[in-house]
Formats: sequence, C-alpha cells, structure tokens
Amino acid sequence: MKRTIPLEFTVGHTEDKAAAPKKTVPATVPGNAQLDWARAENYPDYNFSDNYKLFDWMEDVYWVYSAKIKKPEIQPDEQLYFVSKGIDYEFEILLDGHPLLYQEGMFTPVELDITGTFSGEARLDIVVYPAPKAKNRARDRSEADECAKPPVSYGWDWHPRLIPSGLYEPCYLEVRPALHIIDAEMRYALSDDLSVAYIGLEVQVENCEHRGNRGKLKWELFDKNGAPVLDCSFECVCGYSPEKERLRLLSPELWWPNEHGEQVLYRSVFTLSDADGNIVDAKESRVGFRRCKLVANPGAEAPGFPFSGNYPPITLEVNNRRIFAKGSNWVEPEIFTGLITRASYEPLVKLAREAHFNLFRAWGGCIVSKEAFFDLCDEYGIMVWREFPLACNNYRDNPHYLEILDRESVSIIKRLRRHACLAIWCGGNELFTGWGGMNDQSHALRLLNANCYDHDRFTPFLPTSPVPGMGHGHYMFRYIDQAFMSPRLAHKTEGYDCLTGMIHADKTAYTEFGNSSASDVETLRSIIPSGELFPPKPDGAWMAHHGFEAWVGQGSWLYPENVEHYFGKPDTLEELVAYTQMLQCAGYKGIFEEARRQWRRCSMALNWCYNEPWPTAAGNNLVTFPAKPKPAYYAVQKSCRQQMASARVQKFDFESGEEFELELFVLNDLPEHIEPLTLTATLASDTKTYEICRWQTDKTPPSEHQKSAVYSVKLDEPENCLLRLKIEVAGRGDMDSEYFFVCKNKNSAKKIAPI
Amino acid sequence: MKRTIPLEFTVGHTEDKAAAPKKTVPATVPGNAQLDWARAENYPDYNFSDNYKLFDWMEDVYWVYSAKIKKPEIQPDEQLYFVSKGIDYEFEILLDGHPLLYQEGMFTPVELDITGTFSGEARLDIVVYPAPKAKNRARDRSEADECAKPPVSYGWDWHPRLIPSGLYEPCYLEVRPALHIIDAEMRYALSDDLSVAYIGLEVQVENCEHRGNRGKLKWELFDKNGAPVLDCSFECVCGYSPEKERLRLLSPELWWPNEHGEQVLYRSVFTLSDADGNIVDAKESRVGFRRCKLVANPGAEAPGFPFSGNYPPITLEVNNRRIFAKGSNWVEPEIFTGLITRASYEPLVKLAREAHFNLFRAWGGCIVSKEAFFDLCDEYGIMVWREFPLACNNYRDNPHYLEILDRESVSIIKRLRRHACLAIWCGGNELFTGWGGMNDQSHALRLLNANCYDHDRFTPFLPTSPVPGMGHGHYMFRYIDQAFMSPRLAHKTEGYDCLTGMIHADKTAYTEFGNSSASDVETLRSIIPSGELFPPKPDGAWMAHHGFEAWVGQGSWLYPENVEHYFGKPDTLEELVAYTQMLQCAGYKGIFEEARRQWRRCSMALNWCYNEPWPTAAGNNLVTFPAKPKPAYYAVQKSCRQQMASARVQKFDFESGEEFELELFVLNDLPEHIEPLTLTATLASDTKTYEICRWQTDKTPPSEHQKSAVYSVKLDEPENCLLRLKIEVAGRGDMDSEYFFVCKNKNSAKKIAPI
Repeated sequence: MKRTIPLEFTVGHTEDKAAAPKKTVPATVPGNAQLDWARAENYPDYNFSDNYKLFDWMEDVYWVYSAKIKKPEIQPDEQLYFVSKGIDYEFEILLDGHPLLYQEGMFTPVELDITGTFSGEARLDIVVYPAPKAKNRARDRSEADECAKPPVSYGWDWHPRLIPSGLYEPCYLEVRPALHIIDAEMRYALSDDLSVAYIGLEVQVENCEHRGNRGKLKWELFDKNGAPVLDCSFECVCGYSPEKERLRLLSPELWWPNEHGEQVLYRSVFTLSDADGNIVDAKESRVGFRRCKLVANPGAEAPGFPFSGNYPPITLEVNNRRIFAKGSNWVEPEIFTGLITRASYEPLVKLAREAHFNLFRAWGGCIVSKEAFFDLCDEYGIMVWREFPLACNNYRDNPHYLEILDRESVSIIKRLRRHACLAIWCGGNELFTGWGGMNDQSHALRLLNANCYDHDRFTPFLPTSPVPGMGHGHYMFRYIDQAFMSPRLAHKTEGYDCLTGMIHADKTAYTEFGNSSASDVETLRSIIPSGELFPPKPDGAWMAHHGFEAWVGQGSWLYPENVEHYFGKPDTLEELVAYTQMLQCAGYKGIFEEARRQWRRCSMALNWCYNEPWPTAAGNNLVTFPAKPKPAYYAVQKSCRQQMASARVQKFDFESGEEFELELFVLNDLPEHIEPLTLTATLASDTKTYEICRWQTDKTPPSEHQKSAVYSVKLDEPENCLLRLKIEVAGRGDMDSEYFFVCKNKNSAKKIAPI
Repeated sequence: MKRTIPLEFTVGHTEDKAAAPKKTVPATVPGNAQLDWARAENYPDYNFSDNYKLFDWMEDVYWVYSAKIKKPEIQPDEQLYFVSKGIDYEFEILLDGHPLLYQEGMFTPVELDITGTFSGEARLDIVVYPAPKAKNRARDRSEADECAKPPVSYGWDWHPRLIPSGLYEPCYLEVRPALHIIDAEMRYALSDDLSVAYIGLEVQVENCEHRGNRGKLKWELFDKNGAPVLDCSFECVCGYSPEKERLRLLSPELWWPNEHGEQVLYRSVFTLSDADGNIVDAKESRVGFRRCKLVANPGAEAPGFPFSGNYPPITLEVNNRRIFAKGSNWVEPEIFTGLITRASYEPLVKLAREAHFNLFRAWGGCIVSKEAFFDLCDEYGIMVWREFPLACNNYRDNPHYLEILDRESVSIIKRLRRHACLAIWCGGNELFTGWGGMNDQSHALRLLNANCYDHDRFTPFLPTSPVPGMGHGHYMFRYIDQAFMSPRLAHKTEGYDCLTGMIHADKTAYTEFGNSSASDVETLRSIIPSGELFPPKPDGAWMAHHGFEAWVGQGSWLYPENVEHYFGKPDTLEELVAYTQMLQCAGYKGIFEEARRQWRRCSMALNWCYNEPWPTAAGNNLVTFPAKPKPAYYAVQKSCRQQMASARVQKFDFESGEEFELELFVLNDLPEHIEPLTLTATLASDTKTYEICRWQTDKTPPSEHQKSAVYSVKLDEPENCLLRLKIEVAGRGDMDSEYFFVCKNKNSAKKIAPI
C-alpha cells in the first residue's frame, strides 16, 4: 500500500532566480510563502488597519521552498513520488539543482516519479515565480487577464491587494507499489424516470501488468448504511471506459439539496490486487445520485415580431423537480489560501444550511475551493455553481493563456465532477459586460464549454453570470443616480430604493444583488485604530477596509448618507452600526422575497455576497469574517423559509398622510400543497396600530405561490417613527413574517431609534 | 497515381430487407432512387399540381442499388477502394451479400478498401433504408427530430412532402497506390495586423512507410497568378500537425467578400513521392486568406440595473473591418438533391453577387450544400453562414442521435473549413423557440460548439438563429393580428404594415424577414392546371404550391386580401401577380433599407428567402425556381448598393389630406468617405408633383450613414392613386432611389393600376 513521507520546508526570497535566497525561514505547508515570511519577521496583523500594504514588495520576488529529502527504504517493485495537489502559481521543481518540472497553473496536481533521480540525500527546491502580471495594465485585477490565477488578490472592493502564492496544498513524498491506482472513478447517468443508475467505471492504473500478470480490480458500492449493493471485478487495463462495462443500480436512493430531501451518499470503493492476490492499493469516494439540469422558465419567451431567441434557461431542475434556488455568492474564507481547511469551511456551510439555502454561486474571482468545501456541500445539501478562475476581465484569445486554461480546467473538472453538490459549471464572473468585454465567441469560454461537455456533460454549463435575462445588482439600498435605476424606472428622477427597484425588475434570475452594512462593533474595534473609529471618515482604516470609495459612490460600502436620510444622524458607533444593519436587513428581506414572489419567471436569488476573506469595515456580506452572522443573516434566514407568508410593499419610507399599500403572498417552495389559511396584517407605530387586512386564502398548490388583492391604510403619524408590519398566519406560526419601514412627518425632527 | 473506375447501378425497392427487389430500373448516380423509379415508370412531372404525392409510398421501402464490379488489373502495391462522398441516409454496403459497412449519416464519406474481398466479378449492393422517422410524431418535420437527415423534405411551407434518398453524390471504384494521401490540408492563422499568415500542414498518408522507406511529401503554395510563393518538403508521418511545422507567409493578399475587395485565391498543392522518387499522389486546393470574427455591436449593451449580460455579438468583422452583412437565406435549389450540380448553383450565386450581397445564411433545414456551392462562393465573394442539419425541432439529448451528429458534424467541418467563404458555423434554425424548445444546455448544440472549436476555432459559432438580440420576422406585408406585431407596437390595434413594424424594431440583426409574391405567370402556368389558374382558390394546385394555408393566415403565401386592401380587386391573373409583386418590392425595399439605417446597432439583413427548390405558386423568395429573378430581386438589388440615398417613410398607404413625412439618409457601407451631396426628394401622383425637400449633406464618414431632418408635404389627391417618390443625388446618379406608395381618397372607387 501507499505510504506518505512528510516534508519539512524552509522558504526564502530572491530577485534573481539563479541566486539562492539570502535568508530562509521555516515554512508551513500547506501555507503561503508571504505568511511564513511575515510570521518569521513579526509583521503586525495584516487584518488590522492597512498593514496589508507591508506585503506589497512580496509580489515581485521568487519564493524558494527547500526541503532535504532522504531516500526511504523502498522495495524493487515500489516507486517514490513527489506529490502535491497544486502549487500557486508558476513554478519549477528542482532536485539538487536539476530541473524536474516547470509548470504554470495552480489547479493541476503534481505527481513526479523521483525513484531513480537520486540516492541517499538530496535537496528539493520549489521555485515559485513572482505574481503573474500582464504588461501595460493598471495596478488592478486586469494584471491577471493573461493567466489562470484568480484575480481577487490583485484587489477588489472587499479584498485588499495582497497576492498569496506558494505551497497552498499539501506537498509530500509517497512510496507506491509499482502497480497502483492513478485514478479510479465511478460515473453514472440516471434514466429519465430516475429509477436506474447506469454506472461506468473509469480506472487508470500504473503498470497494469505486474510480473507478467495483470493486476485485478474490485469495485464495490455500499449504501448509506454501509450495506454492499453492487460490485464487480475485472483485470486491469489502462483507461477503462464506461461504455465497455455498463452496470445498473436499480432504484438508487437520490441525493437532494437542502430541504428537498435527504443527502444520501453511497460509498464507492476500488481495491487493486497484484498477481499474487495481495491488495496493493485502494481508492474510495462518496457518490450521490442526482440529476441536475437547467431548464427554461415559463415567462422567458420573447414575445411578438421580430421574434428573438428565448433567454438562456436558468431554472434548476433537480431529480425532475423544478426548484427555486436560494442562496448566496461564495468567496474563499481567507486571503491566505494556504490557511483554508475543513474547519474554515464547515461553520459557513452549516450556517448556509440553517438559512434554508440550497445553492452557493462559488465566484470565479477566487480560487477553486479545496476538496473539503465540496465534501461539506455534499453533506449539507448545498448545491454549488462553480466558476472557473475568470472574473471581470477580458481574457483574450491568447494561445499561451488558452493552453494553460485548457489544462487547468480539465484538472478542475476531473477533480470536482464526482461531487453530488456540483450543480452548474460556469465560465466566470461578469465576462459579458462592458468591463469584461468577452462574449459567446471568446475562445476561453468556448474551450471551457467544450471541456465541460467532454468530461462532464450531464452538468449544465453557463458561459458567465449574468447572461441575457439574468440580473446582477442592484448593490445599493437607495438609488442615488438615474443610471443605476432599473430601465423600467428610468423615467423617474427621485431616489428610489431597492424595494421599488426590485418590484420593477423582470429578470429570470438574480444571481447577484447587494445591500451593505457595517460589521459589528467588536470586529470594527479589531481592525480600526480607536482614534479613527467614530465618526468614520473616508481615509485610513475605514477606507482600507472598504467602508468608503470601495465601489462607485463615495460612501460605499458604509453609506452614512443613507443612515442620515432615513433615520437621522447617529451619535455613536453603536448607533451607526445598528442603522446600517437595519437597512441591510430590510433591503435583503425585500429583495429575496420579491425574487421568490416572481416565481416562475424568476427562479433564483443569490445575494452578493455570503462571507468574506478578512474583516471588512462594511460590506454586502451576510457573515462577517471568519463565521459570525450579521443581523441580515437572520433576516434572510426568515425570508428563505420554504413555506411562509410574505408582504409586497412598494418602498421603505413613507410620509404621514400617505397610503401604506401591501399585497400578501403565501410562498410555497415545497412540492406539497398548503391548506387554506387565514392571514392578518397589522402595522404598528410607536403610538398606534393599523389593522390592514384579513385574507382568507385558497389551497396553495405544490411549488406555487398565491397572492392577495391590494390592501391599504392611510398613515397618520405626528412624529418620525418606525413602522412594524406583522403578518400572522392562524395555526401556522412558523409562517408568520415581520417587516419594518420608516414613516416621516415633515414637522418632526425626531430621530428614529434603532431596533 | 489514383485512377477511377465508374460504376453502373440499377435500383429497385423492397419492403423486406432480406428479399431482393422484384424489379429493378437503371439508376443515375449521382441521383435519387425515387427519381430513377419515377423516370422508369413514366411518372408525371412532380413539379406540376400535386403530383409529388405520387411519391408518398417511396418513403417506407428499402431501395437497393446494385452494380456488377469486375476486379481491375492492379499492381501488388496498389489497392482497390469503393468511394462515395455520401449516401442518403441510413445504408448498408454488401459485396456478394457479405456486409462491408453499415452507416447512418449522409455527410460522412465512405472509403472502403475492397482489395482483398473478391476476385473476378462481384455484386456490390447498397441497401438504403426507409426514411428515418421518430415514433409517435405527426406526419411532419418532427419525424426527423432523432436523426441527422435534414428535415425540409418532410414538408415545409415552401417545400412539398417528398423525401429523397440514395446515391446523391458520386460513387465509384478507385485504384490507389498503397502509399497515398488520405487527406492533406493547409491551415493558417493570421497575425492580428494581418501581415503574416502562420501556416500549418495537416497530412494523413496511408502506408507512409513503403518498401521500408518513407514516402516524401512536397507542399507548394502558388499565388493568384500561379507564381510559387512558398514550399517545403518532408518525410511522411501520419497526422502531421500544424504545431510542429510553422511556416510563415508574409503580407498575404487577402480574400475579401463581395464589393469589399478582391477574392484572392492561392493554390495549395501537395505532392507525394514514393521511396524511388516517383510521384504517386497529389492533392490540390484553393486557399483564401481572411479572418472572420463576430464582434459586439455598439448598442447591444444592457442598460441599467439589474444589469444583464450583453446580447451575443453578431457584427461580422472581416479582415479587421466591421461590415454590414447583406444577403439572403439560402436553400438547396432542387428537391432531388442528386440533381444538384455546379450548374444548378452558379447562376444563383452569380445573381447574389450582382445584388450586392455578401452573405448567404445556408439554412439548416436543407442538406449541407455540395462542394461546388462553396467553390462558387469562394469565387464570387459570398460569405456563407453554414448551419448544421437541425431545424425547428427539439433534438433531444439522445445518445444515439448525439453519436451520429458527432460523426456527421466532424465530417462537415473538416470538409468545409478550408473554404475562404465559410464565415459562421451555426447549430441550426430556430432551435431556441417555443417550437424548437432547445437552449444553450442542449447537448446537440454543446457538441457542435465543441466540435467546431476543436476543428475550426477561428470560425465563429452561433448556437442557432435567432439568439437573444437577433430577430426573425416579420413575414407579412400587413400585420393582420396583434400577436404578430413588434412588442413596441403592441398597444396599437390597427393593421400596421412592415414598414412601420421595421422602424419600431430594435434588433442587432434581422436574419430572417419575409414578404411574399406570386411567381410569374409563365411559372404559374407550368404548375397549375389552366382551369384552376384564376381566380385562385384555397385548394388544388394553388394550395399544393403554397399559395394558401402554407403558413399562419389562410391567405399565405398569396395573400389576395392584401392586394384587394391596397389596390382593388384584380381582374386577371396578370394583374394579381403584378400587385403581389409590387407589395413584395415595396416591403423588401423598406425592410432592407431600414435595417441598414439602423447600423451600427443592427449589422445584418438577410431576407427569407433567396431561392426555392421547386416552383412555388407564391412565396417569399427573390428568385423563382430554378434561377429566374422576381421583380423583388431587382428592388432589393437597388436597396443593397454600397453607397446610396435612402428614404425612411413610416408606412405604405396614405389618405388624401394626410401628411407624407420622410427622413433622408445617405447610406455608406464602404470604408471611404462620400463628399458633401445635394439630395432632392420629389413625390409624384397621377396628377401632380410635390417637391418635398432639398437636403445639403455634410461629408459622409467611411462606413457610416447620415440622416436629414423630417420633411413633409400634405397629400391632396381626388382619386386613389400610386405615389412615386424619387430621391435624386446631384452628380451621383448611381445613388438615386425610387419608391412607391398608395394614396386613397375615401370618395374614390378607382382601382390603382399596377406598375
């Protein structure tokens, strides 16, 4: 059997690749060279203020990892390998100064047979090149537009400029029997009615003939209780194809996304024996049987003449059930990718499950998540829309780039296609835009589509997000500029809010939309020097942590002008934070629920974004670094219940004397009906209670909603105040909903107290 | 060298594949079995009345072609092949009853080495299966939705139900030296500035080692004058790749589409010599150096929030020049595909050139045209948008179908990619529609995109027409139903015409739009029994030839109600024909010119359709079977001049007392400016002349248009009459334009005389 020999590395830097580093420090592997150096040199916390800038110089040096290796005792029919799941980004591997491998690309694993390359001791060097930068670019993400390194670390509106590299995945030596498994995978296709899984086995074996005889493979499938359900044995050949051996599993138990059914995982085990019948290698993985398609929404047809092609389909159909996809945009949980472990992922994935989410859009600007992320999503039932590492740039038809992308994408596809959670492949983020500048004809996207088709055709492929019909945005609670309005509001000139905007939107899917808030006070104190904390100003740590000028609009992402507009001027940091969080709650609640109310035309709502790689001062995220829910998380959690009452209200702020109008909805995302209900809507201010309506519903059909008439009350409030709307469902308290709004009186100067 | 031995076939039919035909008749090859039988049995002309129905029974029998073959004298180092470019559609080849090949698919050539299979004499049988029909379908095109046979012959609104099959391409024996060329192709990529062609040679040689030595290949490139410009020699290896041998041609003379430059064609010649230096084989082809891209139109961006992906790009950029694509939809010129020769194609392609066209959309419902079509388009400068054989059906993710489509599409791509005229690959017609039901996720389209990328990535690929942004339609002169109106006219209720509709359309490309007319009187007399000719009725030959109920609307494609609406009731067949042709002229002129006026947002205008496979009674075509231009051809020819004056008029029919408004345009599709011009617009009725305006233009920039203010005159006509609008351009008579309209007076009952 295989056995692993750990390696101990040091790391140092040099500007001249030919020269050895002047100094080396201990390296943590997996990890990042920059972090090793900072640790050894006692750099201050990079999460505090603008300390990350201390890392700037590290982008342009070579990082040299070195390890002394000692040849282990190996048998004549054993081999010694150097193994890594990936090295970030361009690198050379040398043994005693002799080059073994040069590679560009961090997602393609390294497996080097070094059996015959040395005896006794040797020095293994891994020379990691400076961060790739395209020539003649601004100092921003566009520097990454000729490489397959994810662009986020070149700076984003929620990520500092800080570019990690190095051994971010484990690196070790491995002694293997000459006859061993290179890869073994069970693949399947489900029959249309899901009653049969047609199974194919793809096995690659090294030295499949061993001492004149072929090795033997046994494959077994175990159900969720560990009981064997299917097996077969065969002689080794290289490249065993699914067409040759068609096995059938009848009535497979299906894997379902969160709250649609159980996450049933089978276990597939390959065992390899040599000619003498000794077991020499094995490979095991989990399998969830499910079928995922993107199908066309009713309502996405192009009407009239000249008629146009319908919008691309974006409704997820899982196991023949069309579902509303609820979730968020996933970014990696650390700046330093080497720090990421299952422990970084698990609390976040668990929170997503508890929020009733069923889909993460794993955004293309970040690295393709480590294996543990997909394992967790398999377990927790969160489907993954996985993007390749392209974002917001124009990745041109450059033959060198396409060659790297070709290899990297095939590595990514082959690694991830076996996960039940993998629901959608996508080329990358915002590539069909003015700033992206790519389109259907871009060779990079045609290549990715072709590779996904060749290696995983039963998973849908989207070229990018958004494509026509789908929407990104808005990212503001209050629309400050006409250009930012929905086209259907463009004739209006006042500052409408996102509730109004969303009701006028008509997309098939909202795959990004944002509403920002400040992080909690404790987090803010941990990243902002106390002297800068309050009142926040557009410089220093607030700015470095994206509170100001991070995006269009000077106030982003803190937007203190919105707080003042709706509530009055806050007197303390605590008050400011509470107000921004109130707006984020109200905004996200409005958008998530309105997107759901637009079912079936709309079938997806994913806010920008879920988590963050470092503590921001303010941002659109639901969960603060590392895994601390914001109040908006709990608001969204309520808005994503499978069955619930929901109120459509046209805007957030009212004036005394105005009519407060609402329509009630029963939202039902489950494939079972809801019995007739009685809903009552009550609005309460500081001083009075308005009984708005009592609505007796019909039976709500499975996976359908129903809507009431428009009800209204006239507001009469002497002072500025908060309005609390309560929808109560008799006998179904689990479906109750609450909202809040603002009511102003021109004659009142009263500040509205935060909740 | 290779030598060809012709074959003489007989053909007969049988319902039982195992049984021989009871009777056989001489077969013409290339040809179609159905036609052979009809000839031998003296069937009446299938073009007349509804005689085509006599062929119905032929769909469901096996057609057995047989030929006696005699083994020729061949040398020990020669081989005997059976060769065909394609056999329609599913077939078996047997030698003396022993099966040699079973194949489904008509576009994959057959090359069978039969050297050792017989001595003396033998019988070669080709058993062609019944027409493929998916189960449980209506008797229409949907029967073809599980096969790669083009669906048009299953019946269309301009093609009778008549399904040909058999040996539609040449079939012969060929004696080849053992060492011979299987395929040899010069491929190239142009540098960004077009100054260098990077050349790769792809050669496949049979038996590349010959008597222990390798054969030698010589490749030479000759310029348009026959002068050698580049050559190289090398030893044979199989699968010679372009990466290995990079040749450069500096400053290649470029191939340009019609009226954008010359159609420069080089000649590429491969010569194969054996070990003794004897030339044993050669292969020659023509090469045009050009680079074709689809780029994004300015104006196709999605505005506002939530912002959506931009529309797919549809502007043709040829040799770095963005051009307006003018042309038409091409269908094959015969029902019986075996009849098609270069002589069938040439007059049609020549007429397209004379109409100032530069693009044919070669529609996916028909067969992929024979080689001569692409040769002619190379020569005449007509770019080809080539669709795969999918149209208006939902070709589902069916593994058997996908396997056939995979092989057939690779055969098609490899055959056609060497043509300079080939500008766009496209999945097929109207697949992203309610009736098509396919989308970006359809495996057939992902497969085609992948195959085009793998084998011809420098040619753009469109999944279908239309995609979002592009328009198909309208196909009526007068909108008879609100559902058929442009969405931007949907609030109006009257019967608007196509001039109004087009001005309100906002597509990036109009890749189909139609206006119908009757065929000329001589043609009508050749297809309709004299007793049925006039007045036409919705039955018999008028119906069989698509004059009535061919499309939505009982009157299509003759639409006698439109004639009566605009002009009055015709008294003779001649008058009826003239009126329909007047409407077709006015409609097409209005649409082609309006599409051009919408440049740059719009960059393509292709009417439905150019030609027809049999004489229709009425249709949208510009050229009547076989190659007889309709009056609309000449009207469109005028509307497609590269530089011209054009008038935008909002509609076709006016009432006396109404304002007649127009805007003038100078249209300039050439990359050179036009000096300032003086345009005068004059409107003449039967009785008077209105001087509308005199417009002094500025200089018109290269590849740009300019537009005047709105001018108008008040109409004052005592009787119904025709209005003739003349735009004269001082000193540039070649840019003059003429239009006609109708003016009614409520008190007049006068019939308007045809032009």
